[in-house]
Amino acid sequence: MALVTQALAAGEQNTRATVAAAVGLTRATVSTLVDELLAAGLLKELGAQRPGTVGRPGTVLALADTGPAGLGAEVGVDHLAACVVDLRGAVRCRAEAPAANRGRPAEAVLADLAVLAANVTGQAAAMRLRPVGTTVAVPGLVGRDRRTVLRAPNLGWEQADVAAALGPDTVVENEANLGALAELWFGGHDRLADFVHVSAEIGIGAAVVVEGRLFRGARGFAGELGHVPVRPDGPLCSCGAHGCLETFAGEEALLRAAGVTAGRGPALGAAAATGDPAALAALAEAGAALGIALSGAVNLLDPQAVVVGGPLAELAPWLLPGVRRELADRVTDRQWRPQDVVTSRLGRDGVLRGAAYSSVRAVLDDPAAWIIAGAERSANPVRTGPGGGRS
Amino acid sequence: MALVTQALAAGEQNTRATVAAAVGLTRATVSTLVDELLAAGLLKELGAQRPGTVGRPGTVLALADTGPAGLGAEVGVDHLAACVVDLRGAVRCRAEAPAANRGRPAEAVLADLAVLAANVTGQAAAMRLRPVGTTVAVPGLVGRDRRTVLRAPNLGWEQADVAAALGPDTVVENEANLGALAELWFGGHDRLADFVHVSAEIGIGAAVVVEGRLFRGARGFAGELGHVPVRPDGPLCSCGAHGCLETFAGEEALLRAAGVTAGRGPALGAAAATGDPAALAALAEAGAALGIALSGAVNLLDPQAVVVGGPLAELAPWLLPGVRRELADRVTDRQWRPQDVVTSRLGRDGVLRGAAYSSVRAVLDDPAAWIIAGAERSANPVRTGPGGGRS
Repeated sequence: MALVTQALAAGEQNTRATVAAAVGLTRATVSTLVDELLAAGLLKELGAQRPGTVGRPGTVLALADTGPAGLGAEVGVDHLAACVVDLRGAVRCRAEAPAANRGRPAEAVLADLAVLAANVTGQAAAMRLRPVGTTVAVPGLVGRDRRTVLRAPNLGWEQADVAAALGPDTVVENEANLGALAELWFGGHDRLADFVHVSAEIGIGAAVVVEGRLFRGARGFAGELGHVPVRPDGPLCSCGAHGCLETFAGEEALLRAAGVTAGRGPALGAAAATGDPAALAALAEAGAALGIALSGAVNLLDPQAVVVGGPLAELAPWLLPGVRRELADRVTDRQWRPQDVVTSRLGRDGVLRGAAYSSVRAVLDDPAAWIIAGAERSANPVRTGPGGGRS
Repeated sequence: MALVTQALAAGEQNTRATVAAAVGLTRATVSTLVDELLAAGLLKELGAQRPGTVGRPGTVLALADTGPAGLGAEVGVDHLAACVVDLRGAVRCRAEAPAANRGRPAEAVLADLAVLAANVTGQAAAMRLRPVGTTVAVPGLVGRDRRTVLRAPNLGWEQADVAAALGPDTVVENEANLGALAELWFGGHDRLADFVHVSAEIGIGAAVVVEGRLFRGARGFAGELGHVPVRPDGPLCSCGAHGCLETFAGEEALLRAAGVTAGRGPALGAAAATGDPAALAALAEAGAALGIALSGAVNLLDPQAVVVGGPLAELAPWLLPGVRRELADRVTDRQWRPQDVVTSRLGRDGVLRGAAYSSVRAVLDDPAAWIIAGAERSANPVRTGPGGGRS
């Protein structure tokens, strides 16, 4: 069943016959699975295939654009956002609010986020979309239970139970990880399954994708590019070490070096665009530092590409020359070409869209489990134990 | 069938009943599989279980110590070696020869290696052991075909076809990868499946093991710790970049800094053991450089441990204080404890043993394929096409 949903998620103009060919099952087996998925509301029939196709025309199948959907929510340092995507990954509604979240109690921030989430859920209901799960993006370290933020220094959070505030079907994920997954799912790259994704807002966020999956490490702490040493005797970092990448290319260091006192990243980009020498010098140094840290990462991980995404993508015109030069000089064992460093086209919405779609992916990757859980819930609507409900 | 051989490889004093419990199959199914493996010569029965066990005593099973075996061969800069291990991983015979391989034509070196391999194969035959495959360890970059060395700068090789010299059942592997696999298989660590393994002879060899498998990267170039930048404005490296780890902790740099002109690593260890100040200073600086590069690797990969192995393990008493200090200062997101840096107990033979056992693992991981290929070979002894023979 998962093979069928994944084939439909990957391609267009599919029929029972093209799906059967794609997944290597018989037409009869695929028809049975399709019937079950239609009954569960995960698929819909779009009508007859266009004429001119060889053989008897089939019925075009697609993932449903009503029914099960994914809710994504994002906690930023100065904003909150929520959106709903359908099974096809299209953003169907969205809400955002500016906020001063740094140092505010987690409970208050999450209560505001729950209001935004209820707002988009209401909008979605009017379009006959029903979120089957919520994924919350946070700039922090997430516990193994995927419910709790262990620590988010830029927010001032310690041990914040996000699922308690947003509901039992909530999963929390680090924003850098979701940005990387969004790039994997929506980045428009052909066959890019192994890459290092670097984004940045306050700190340096990075994530590693290997064979199309997040590389999390033994304890879930992998991808900390921001604390790779660049110049070991360099400036003191917030982590207590000296010369981490973040002390050269983190937003605070960049703004200070550029003499930008208000307006953050966009103001820095604007200054660079007008040729401001301090801004250009700061970005050149940050680009070189990023390139040095990424050289180490590429030598260790051998990815296909490095993707610069999130707010950092807006500064790419000034950062990339230094990044590319250092990589060309320092990557051993292969030619590293300028086009192996890619700028994301997703813009600032990548993290939020990745969050919403990761809730949907859980259904597409195991539709049978979702259908069975739904049947059990209908048979026994009173929640009797853990894992009991999908609201 | 693979579940059965893997259970027997992992444990001692197994019977059909304990294997069935370990792999989650019925006693009847396991008995059938065991009979097939006994007939193929991969297992043997060791007699009745010792008395005192609850229930009817079973027959103790073990992997065979005759029959199928693995041949490992090693090309070093100044030696050649070969050994045969049985299915249990025990080294049954071994041959070694000093050699001056640097700059010698690959064909001449490989011809000498083939003589050593024939020598140990003869010794093995006298013990009724028959190598089913050969794995050759080289200090260089191996092609995707696993037959060819693309480039081994310390030997002066380019495009050397190792399988042509050693026979069709030969696989080539980078020595650092085999050292890491040997640590995984024979290191005596409990549940260590995610680690960075650093060894060094001329360069810095390193390999990354993730979930019990080698992490190779998108093109097979992962694990190049030696070219992680440590001090980006540091000395020029043989790779053309500045300040790579190898310029501080590679053997050549170390010996030069210590003023050791002959005798290589062991001479350096001896000088350090007598308290020679230049040797101690060189090792302290190399340890710090290694720690800086490893901090980056740990922040990116989040392994359970770092293992210092190969010839580098002999210098561990002087290198480890610097390594541990830098890791403690620079690893973010978790406490990095001194005991998370481990010295290998395998000594200099790890690579060779890893090579030999990796040939055996191919059989243990897919015994059915090996049995079927053997049956086809018996039925049709004249080789008629590609992939036709296991000699």
